[in-house]
Amino acid sequence: MNNKAVHFSENKICKLFGISYPVIQAGMIWCSGWELASAVSNAGGLGLIGSGSMYPEILKDQIRKCKSATTKPFGVNVPLLYPDIEKHIEIILEEKVPVVFSSAGNPKTWTSKLKSSGVIVVHVVSNVRFALKAVEAGVDAVVCEGFEAGGHNGREELTTMVLIPMVRSAVSIPLIAAGGIGTGAGLMAALSLGAEGVQIGSRFVASNESSAHQNFKEEVLSAGEDSTILALKALTPVRLLKNKFYQDVKHLEDTCAQASELQHLLGHGRAKKGMFEGDLEEGELEIGQIAGMIKMINPASEILDSIVSEYIALKEEIISGTGKY
Amino acid sequence: MNNKAVHFSENKICKLFGISYPVIQAGMIWCSGWELASAVSNAGGLGLIGSGSMYPEILKDQIRKCKSATTKPFGVNVPLLYPDIEKHIEIILEEKVPVVFSSAGNPKTWTSKLKSSGVIVVHVVSNVRFALKAVEAGVDAVVCEGFEAGGHNGREELTTMVLIPMVRSAVSIPLIAAGGIGTGAGLMAALSLGAEGVQIGSRFVASNESSAHQNFKEEVLSAGEDSTILALKALTPVRLLKNKFYQDVKHLEDTCAQASELQHLLGHGRAKKGMFEGDLEEGELEIGQIAGMIKMINPASEILDSIVSEYIALKEEIISGTGKY
Repeated sequence: MNNKAVHFSENKICKLFGISYPVIQAGMIWCSGWELASAVSNAGGLGLIGSGSMYPEILKDQIRKCKSATTKPFGVNVPLLYPDIEKHIEIILEEKVPVVFSSAGNPKTWTSKLKSSGVIVVHVVSNVRFALKAVEAGVDAVVCEGFEAGGHNGREELTTMVLIPMVRSAVSIPLIAAGGIGTGAGLMAALSLGAEGVQIGSRFVASNESSAHQNFKEEVLSAGEDSTILALKALTPVRLLKNKFYQDVKHLEDTCAQASELQHLLGHGRAKKGMFEGDLEEGELEIGQIAGMIKMINPASEILDSIVSEYIALKEEIISGTGKY
Repeated sequence: MNNKAVHFSENKICKLFGISYPVIQAGMIWCSGWELASAVSNAGGLGLIGSGSMYPEILKDQIRKCKSATTKPFGVNVPLLYPDIEKHIEIILEEKVPVVFSSAGNPKTWTSKLKSSGVIVVHVVSNVRFALKAVEAGVDAVVCEGFEAGGHNGREELTTMVLIPMVRSAVSIPLIAAGGIGTGAGLMAALSLGAEGVQIGSRFVASNESSAHQNFKEEVLSAGEDSTILALKALTPVRLLKNKFYQDVKHLEDTCAQASELQHLLGHGRAKKGMFEGDLEEGELEIGQIAGMIKMINPASEILDSIVSEYIALKEEIISGTGKY
């Protein structure tokens, strides 16, 4: 691992968070608890707890467990539309969590309060317009998440390949690419396009430490190139596996059902049912297009190591000056 | 330009076509005539004539003009579902066109005939399944075109970021990335992801030599990040600018109209009306997401030069060993 230290020595994302590799593990609902977050942070990346599926007391417990499992920086992902958001923020401040990634909401509401308490704040966006708003709100960095990403997604359907250079040319703060990235090649591509780091979700779902149900992890491994779709556009667009629940959604969508009918079908607890309880038929299974390339469940540290090793090998190939480059 | 020769010395796409830079200009309907194709080939890339919008006699004339305008390799893009396909193939063979890019159809039908006459054959695909079929048909390379690309598009909606590594791990023939690429950064990202070259469409629409109507070229310049959409999915998915024609399509799609109603609205000649005749209201204006980054109309040679220069500067930044890499 020693030779890896020569890379990323001036990387702004590594400097911002105080980490070794510019790889962030996404704070995904039902999948990203303290075990995953601390494993990624201990391995030199930045692990995030996904608070969107946690009651405040659960979040507090998860943060405390994470702190006792790592001395490295870690963070919490906070969907700003979460009903108990005030309590979540209070706990984050009380527990002195060093980093917050906010998403799904207006970054103006909490950024200055968090920053005045010394928290590093990053906001997740899906277009240039939202990136500029995040800069205006004073965030330290933005995550730009493309159409290929799992879970909630932007309406413009901008892909990572296009979104990263567009945002790069509009803002000067550090930029983290997300969507379709799960390998060292993806990391190099993202940096080339203008990002300083990457956020990886799907590949960490299929890790030993992820709190996803084993059924869901195995379903991710069996995903092919046509297994995911961006659905529920009449509500909030979300990328998911095409299971029986999706077929029910599709039937409504194909017949131009009202948004209220879709909402009724979705109901409550679909994501928990699928991702946490392992109901592959009736649950909502959020995952990115890159799932089609994930073939093994590994310890999070091995996933991070392999991404960094692939990246270094690729960088050496570019530097060698022979071959296709 | 001399120092550029040290790059791509072993690049398989450069070797396959006998070109200096692994950049192919897409053979787009109504935009890619002999002036554009010969300009790109003369500048060291591979120019393609788009035969999909040409009657056989027009194609013959375009090929002859291209041959008299360049001594460098060039090619013709052939949509295999073109009604007069036999005549197109006959003309291509008679005129000894060195390269054919086929798309929209079964590569088995014509590949062996073309190859036995010495033509280099490349097929355009949107997923791994079609890439494997193209390999089986004996093509020399594949173009993998992602969701962000303009014009006709795949049903799986795989983005370039995900499609390239997926196909790379499935086939061993040279691979050309398309969709969302218009800069040197895009070229480096595509090579990192596993491609040997790139095909660029949208950026060459906005070139002096493109046969697109001036109105359409200027409309591309004014496109923003939310200006394109993948529409007409009930027929063949196509990415286009959201103009008045698209709003009419959207109205039908939002009300779950039959495919036949969409077909009736589409009618005949919509693409010609928009892209070639410059009717920005009633015409179909096919363009990729990258349009949002295109801000100037330039000579094709300058576009190619800037892509290669950006690429070389980026490569040197990676090699320098400082900074974010």
